Amino acid sequence: MLHEVEDKFKDECGVFGIYLNNPGSAVDASRTTFYGLYALQHRGQESTGIAVSDGHQINLHKGMGLVSEVIDEQHLEALKGHIAIGHVRYSTTGESGLVNSQPLVFHYLNGMVALAHNGNLVNKVELRKRLATYGSVFQTTTDTEIVANLLARYSQDTMEDALAKCMIDMKGAFALVIMGEDRLVGVRDPMGIRPLCIGILNGNYVLSSESAALDTIGADFVRDVNPGEIVVIDQEGMRSQQVLNSPRSAHCIFEYIYFARPDSTIDGINVYQARRSMGRQLARECGIEADLVISVPDSGTSAALGYAEEAGLPFEEGLMKNRYVGRTFIRPTQQMRELGVQLKLNAIEEVVKDKRIIMVDDSIVRGTTSKKIVQMLRRAGAKEVHMAVASPPTKFPCYYGIDTSRREELIANNMDNDEIREFIGADSLNYISREGMRDALQKNYPFFCDACFSGSYPLPIESD
Amino acid sequence: MLHEVEDKFKDECGVFGIYLNNPGSAVDASRTTFYGLYALQHRGQESTGIAVSDGHQINLHKGMGLVSEVIDEQHLEALKGHIAIGHVRYSTTGESGLVNSQPLVFHYLNGMVALAHNGNLVNKVELRKRLATYGSVFQTTTDTEIVANLLARYSQDTMEDALAKCMIDMKGAFALVIMGEDRLVGVRDPMGIRPLCIGILNGNYVLSSESAALDTIGADFVRDVNPGEIVVIDQEGMRSQQVLNSPRSAHCIFEYIYFARPDSTIDGINVYQARRSMGRQLARECGIEADLVISVPDSGTSAALGYAEEAGLPFEEGLMKNRYVGRTFIRPTQQMRELGVQLKLNAIEEVVKDKRIIMVDDSIVRGTTSKKIVQMLRRAGAKEVHMAVASPPTKFPCYYGIDTSRREELIANNMDNDEIREFIGADSLNYISREGMRDALQKNYPFFCDACFSGSYPLPIESD
Amino acid sequence: MLHEVEDKFKDECGVFGIYLNNPGSAVDASRTTFYGLYALQHRGQESTGIAVSDGHQINLHKGMGLVSEVIDEQHLEALKGHIAIGHVRYSTTGESGLVNSQPLVFHYLNGMVALAHNGNLVNKVELRKRLATYGSVFQTTTDTEIVANLLARYSQDTMEDALAKCMIDMKGAFALVIMGEDRLVGVRDPMGIRPLCIGILNGNYVLSSESAALDTIGADFVRDVNPGEIVVIDQEGMRSQQVLNSPRSAHCIFEYIYFARPDSTIDGINVYQARRSMGRQLARECGIEADLVISVPDSGTSAALGYAEEAGLPFEEGLMKNRYVGRTFIRPTQQMRELGVQLKLNAIEEVVKDKRIIMVDDSIVRGTTSKKIVQMLRRAGAKEVHMAVASPPTKFPCYYGIDTSRREELIANNMDNDEIREFIGADSLNYISREGMRDALQKNYPFFCDACFSGSYPLPIESD
Amino acid sequence: MLHEVEDKFKDECGVFGIYLNNPGSAVDASRTTFYGLYALQHRGQESTGIAVSDGHQINLHKGMGLVSEVIDEQHLEALKGHIAIGHVRYSTTGESGLVNSQPLVFHYLNGMVALAHNGNLVNKVELRKRLATYGSVFQTTTDTEIVANLLARYSQDTMEDALAKCMIDMKGAFALVIMGEDRLVGVRDPMGIRPLCIGILNGNYVLSSESAALDTIGADFVRDVNPGEIVVIDQEGMRSQQVLNSPRSAHCIFEYIYFARPDSTIDGINVYQARRSMGRQLARECGIEADLVISVPDSGTSAALGYAEEAGLPFEEGLMKNRYVGRTFIRPTQQMRELGVQLKLNAIEEVVKDKRIIMVDDSIVRGTTSKKIVQMLRRAGAKEVHMAVASPPTKFPCYYGIDTSRREELIANNMDNDEIREFIGADSLNYISREGMRDALQKNYPFFCDACFSGSYPLPIESD
Repeated sequence: MLHEVEDKFKDECGVFGIYLNNPGSAVDASRTTFYGLYALQHRGQESTGIAVSDGHQINLHKGMGLVSEVIDEQHLEALKGHIAIGHVRYSTTGESGLVNSQPLVFHYLNGMVALAHNGNLVNKVELRKRLATYGSVFQTTTDTEIVANLLARYSQDTMEDALAKCMIDMKGAFALVIMGEDRLVGVRDPMGIRPLCIGILNGNYVLSSESAALDTIGADFVRDVNPGEIVVIDQEGMRSQQVLNSPRSAHCIFEYIYFARPDSTIDGINVYQARRSMGRQLARECGIEADLVISVPDSGTSAALGYAEEAGLPFEEGLMKNRYVGRTFIRPTQQMRELGVQLKLNAIEEVVKDKRIIMVDDSIVRGTTSKKIVQMLRRAGAKEVHMAVASPPTKFPCYYGIDTSRREELIANNMDNDEIREFIGADSLNYISREGMRDALQKNYPFFCDACFSGSYPLPIESD
Repeated sequence: MLHEVEDKFKDECGVFGIYLNNPGSAVDASRTTFYGLYALQHRGQESTGIAVSDGHQINLHKGMGLVSEVIDEQHLEALKGHIAIGHVRYSTTGESGLVNSQPLVFHYLNGMVALAHNGNLVNKVELRKRLATYGSVFQTTTDTEIVANLLARYSQDTMEDALAKCMIDMKGAFALVIMGEDRLVGVRDPMGIRPLCIGILNGNYVLSSESAALDTIGADFVRDVNPGEIVVIDQEGMRSQQVLNSPRSAHCIFEYIYFARPDSTIDGINVYQARRSMGRQLARECGIEADLVISVPDSGTSAALGYAEEAGLPFEEGLMKNRYVGRTFIRPTQQMRELGVQLKLNAIEEVVKDKRIIMVDDSIVRGTTSKKIVQMLRRAGAKEVHMAVASPPTKFPCYYGIDTSRREELIANNMDNDEIREFIGADSLNYISREGMRDALQKNYPFFCDACFSGSYPLPIESD
Repeated sequence: MLHEVEDKFKDECGVFGIYLNNPGSAVDASRTTFYGLYALQHRGQESTGIAVSDGHQINLHKGMGLVSEVIDEQHLEALKGHIAIGHVRYSTTGESGLVNSQPLVFHYLNGMVALAHNGNLVNKVELRKRLATYGSVFQTTTDTEIVANLLARYSQDTMEDALAKCMIDMKGAFALVIMGEDRLVGVRDPMGIRPLCIGILNGNYVLSSESAALDTIGADFVRDVNPGEIVVIDQEGMRSQQVLNSPRSAHCIFEYIYFARPDSTIDGINVYQARRSMGRQLARECGIEADLVISVPDSGTSAALGYAEEAGLPFEEGLMKNRYVGRTFIRPTQQMRELGVQLKLNAIEEVVKDKRIIMVDDSIVRGTTSKKIVQMLRRAGAKEVHMAVASPPTKFPCYYGIDTSRREELIANNMDNDEIREFIGADSLNYISREGMRDALQKNYPFFCDACFSGSYPLPIESD
Repeated sequence: MLHEVEDKFKDECGVFGIYLNNPGSAVDASRTTFYGLYALQHRGQESTGIAVSDGHQINLHKGMGLVSEVIDEQHLEALKGHIAIGHVRYSTTGESGLVNSQPLVFHYLNGMVALAHNGNLVNKVELRKRLATYGSVFQTTTDTEIVANLLARYSQDTMEDALAKCMIDMKGAFALVIMGEDRLVGVRDPMGIRPLCIGILNGNYVLSSESAALDTIGADFVRDVNPGEIVVIDQEGMRSQQVLNSPRSAHCIFEYIYFARPDSTIDGINVYQARRSMGRQLARECGIEADLVISVPDSGTSAALGYAEEAGLPFEEGLMKNRYVGRTFIRPTQQMRELGVQLKLNAIEEVVKDKRIIMVDDSIVRGTTSKKIVQMLRRAGAKEVHMAVASPPTKFPCYYGIDTSRREELIANNMDNDEIREFIGADSLNYISREGMRDALQKNYPFFCDACFSGSYPLPIESD
């Protein structure tokens, strides 16, 4: 229920993998994967899974829920081996549920394989149809099962060659962590839409959606997997194959705005610095007179600090978040709907009373939450409430693995700036401009995918 | 733990299906399947599943545990449709676990299918290899997934033709209940090793492993599915195709001895009558002088009543069973191991003291339980304990879907009659003869498979 | 739901205790209590609890559910000590729920005490009022908490003297197993309404509601606790105090008819023998011509065997019970209500068809189940169905710890014999006579309480 | 496990209550209590309970876990009534576990009562002994049960008079919310050690540990309950009785430093403003030269913002917290112990590299976490790390309801300032002075209890 007050885009998945090629390093593969997933929990809270190989056999445990709910000590002790991969999921495609959770473990002609996937294939319907014609059966609705069946089509090839052929077949966004009985493989789509990086822990290679998970487990960052690259890690060490080359990259810009942890660095850009820099740019563009800057915690805080710094205004914690807001199954009554965001956020009257406030948030999706927060600040006595948004208006849905609302639910698709301002009840409303964001991030847009703002999709979408 | 005192062969599965072609009949498909599985619970206690089709979509709920543990009211309400199949499982092949539970639901070129299987394919290794060569992937270790992939190979055919081709590929024991989006199908192997029968409930066709489940739901028995037959039920009614004809049948004789419910009638023989008749024959063969007949409850009781009747001796309840013996997870200590069967059975001193007892059981597998029961009776004061077994010595493992112990664990494989008698400590030990059993059942052995007694396997076994 | 088809009186509790005064005996107190409760599970399936003392501290684990559901290996390992008591409960007084489960552990002036109780105090309202006037608070609605508070009133006395005074205060039925930090105590009400017996296991004393639990754990029966007696077991051994003497005993006759296990011997009478003897007497009283005798399993079987023997008729298993009928939470639909007892029992057509049947049951409460069984037998082709009941008509409610239906629900309270026969649809209906039952049990009624048949209550009832 | 990295004092409980005297207000008592407890979750995460009265009967649901884990929609629907109280618990006294969870519901001479308690009685041993002498029994080890038994001693009095007498008996810290069948009562100890305030929601009175819970449910703050005051709310409205007057108050100063939510205002002081003000004072006292200020999130952030403002330094998010750190049951391995706080916190290299950092935290208990954070910052490249603590050194344990470590574990009890600095490895270490704190809070210490800093206990401690 309380999730409904969360008016944000939803990320879909986090992937992690480790290969112990330094056996004297006292590192435990499944336990390290547990901690790695723990650090990636923000990328998916619906299901958790860990698969481990001891060189001969792959074992798996997965379930619905958070990492700490699904995996316990007994599971870790049973998951023995020197290679492990893990997955956390927030469903975008396919119905939710255990059957669709990952990693997917399967047997094929060449043995056992485990797959963990972050992204979305835009030609999934066509691929399923093609595979079914050859006699494939599908027990889930996931992309991952499509990849498994594609791989099995090329079972006469080496795994690397087979994966290279699969990359030619697959259109869309994908960051894959794959475990064969004796190897760990990372694959990233040709435009690098979804993130995937390489780390090293006591001489052992690690793959992770975000670098923050490397820090958490004590690993050092090596580099990002390149767009279109396959990296294979086995007892020989790591080798790379650049399978596909795209004239442009299309790194998801929303990773920097909201999804990724501020302490991650993705494709060369630190997320916290990016947000702070966008906050500063926003301040330059806004030019609003006010007494203080507050943020909508926690995702708006980095940008708000940048804003306050640039504007020379004090930053205060005008909105407090209940740190224990979690999943609950109480039916929302009328009383509760009126309470709305109060269950999650509370204005501090002593801070905002009689003040002109600039409230910074990272993004607006449907606008309903922003409206309630503005009301809350006014009830607490704020004299003026100016909303500043550290991303441009989100007008277009994502087809590359992000759960945006449907287009008609995106407020910026239906209203112009002034109508939105009126809807949320703010004294002013400013979004950062696309140009300002580009300047703040010091990259041009062919580096990023910003289709949710621009409608300019780097890959054509399957019409099904 | 307490299961260990159970020294019996284990059955593996029960299957059930219903097609509502009489929509005015106020019968609920998933609920009736629930009750049907409830009546088949003795055939498998590890996992339960129900799949339902509304003509377009197949929905599934399954889980580990008894029918009443896995399925609740909410699940039934969600399982809406006019066709349903269900499965209870005691694992024989494949590791246990949710991933291997049934029904298996999959998409293929022609839509969705759900499969429920009882039996064992003897050429599974060869079939998997062949399918993998064509590019199939396997997420489980079940026969059911092999059947699904076989079916998808023939996706250019009608489902009936495809199944007919599958029947040619599949060697072994199989009773299959299959649900397409708009039909219910029953398939039985060419020798009819595992049971499957047809019933009718208010004009709606039902398929079930045993006729007792028809009684439970209030359906009338129509007939057994014939060995080698496919029956298809859809809105046109029921039609049949006799795909394969075998020169002999090989109905599992252990269904009559121990597995099936006494209130079931399978392939023309009522199980209770069969057991009572075997008990009478056993009495004729034994000719032991004694004061009274008792049974090892509950499976030995029908035969014991027959024995007592034929021998003109009183039948008494000399052993009482704890009706609440269930699954427990207490580690067996030395103290407990000494208690042994006492946790489950108790001798009534007032009945057995100073008496010459004939104790009737349906079968002996390893002999360890029989030994403890004899000791218990002696401690309670029995003057003589004569063991009479209503089946011949079990010397050979089953490859057709029954979990026998390994051959070296079968006491009759290692000892002759007198050594067994000495091991269990009885004053005498008599098994019914193979000929006596044949006479009691009024069928010759080509009608039955009795390979566990004779070693004469009706189908060659894959050497893997 | 399926419990509703159970048309029987409900027992309320089983109690068990052990004191290890022979430390070299390799017996584990909590584990033995676990097995003891396991053997008493038929006396209560709602909650389970075990409390253990190590001489200084009492530890407790309890929960809702069967013994095997509530207690696992970890609990047993945590429950360390040389004295243990346990309890299984079917609620009669007090709302159900964890708060009312037992044993009740409390601290008072003299240390810690654990209490387990079977029975019902008829002056509970007056006792609670009296205690509340002195300042007692009650967190539950159980008799057990009343006993705890009474005991604390006499905290200046030794525990034995205090319990003797409590016995004077308490009116009604009670079999108490009490554990102080360093002793185990058994108390039985002055008329011995509820059972309690003493056993010995490798030199260690045991207390149990029924002797069958002694057999299960391998203990020898010593004797019953006498009505009005307190037995104290500590490191000095066992000592007894005959506190109260009643001119008559009032052993609950329903223990022999239905509640107790057939393999228990209570107050000198073996339950199985009692039932068989009542069956024989019933046959003598009935004199019905028929082809065969069947029982309503399992509780009617012992009497049916006696009946068949006396009548010289064959006993057959005409009704089969689903051994896996358990608790389920499916809402009863119209379809299910029509199925009724079929979910639990099934007639074997091959046995009953065209036969004149005598169906023996132990008792009739509301008659609804009997009616459905008679219908089932007729549908299966029985020519005549004669019902014979091995107890007299139950016309009066019990106030001594049995959950009878309310008086107006007892069919024998509302109808005469012929009306009941017509209601259940039998060709004839015979109950054993009160005199016949007395003769069969070879005791006169002042030995028993048979108030549920006679309305002659041995103790006055509190009017509240 | 991950809780171990939490090196903080632990608060013990939150209490909440509501009386609907405005029946037309469409407010639901139990649901509002649910939301109120939700907002107080930071005060206790071990158990949750809600009790409701409909004027005649009190119903209760409680369990181990968070509010959202223990209470679901079905419970709320069953908890019908116009008065409700609730409790969240972190155990300080008494072993943890369901038996000790609250509210405690009991029957006594005058009916039913439910009790919820925050605090600790310093004369509990003496009170239990005295009550046991009168015949009281104790089923828990909580103070709450002592209060219940005390209240029952005075059952000849009105509830208000009885509570007034109880207040004379009880020594220590207590904020009680009590529900009779027809009234809601709030009681606060004579020095006001633990907080309790009054709010009003659509005309209905509310009691709560903190004002932030009033905001969350949409209620308005009325006033704090006075030290030594009893407030009674029933259909007549609210009335007050000032039972005891103390020459001084002793409001727990740690509520402002760490326990309470920043958006609460307690006894006239807003927590956020207090922290920010202490941060400013700390900056004035320190005078350290540095490049930027960071906080140990989340509890150090308010003070850090104050520090940065006063020092004229930029505030940056140099440490990022994993928002999903929760309870987990993975055994800490050597690998994990080395990871330590990394699982919870991560330094942003881009922020701290080559910088002179002032790191602000609210308090230091054992110092182990601070040490690891300093190491983490140095690994991330910080040039200097100066630790500034917004509270004085904690040298003395609390006896008034706070779970401090034992005295010997408090680092400031064992080391002087320089030794601590060396232990944690900081370049400098500064605590705010007691005088500075007094100035920042604009109150003298007789207003607060600051015994954990000063050893000056406002109430004598029972020596048991």
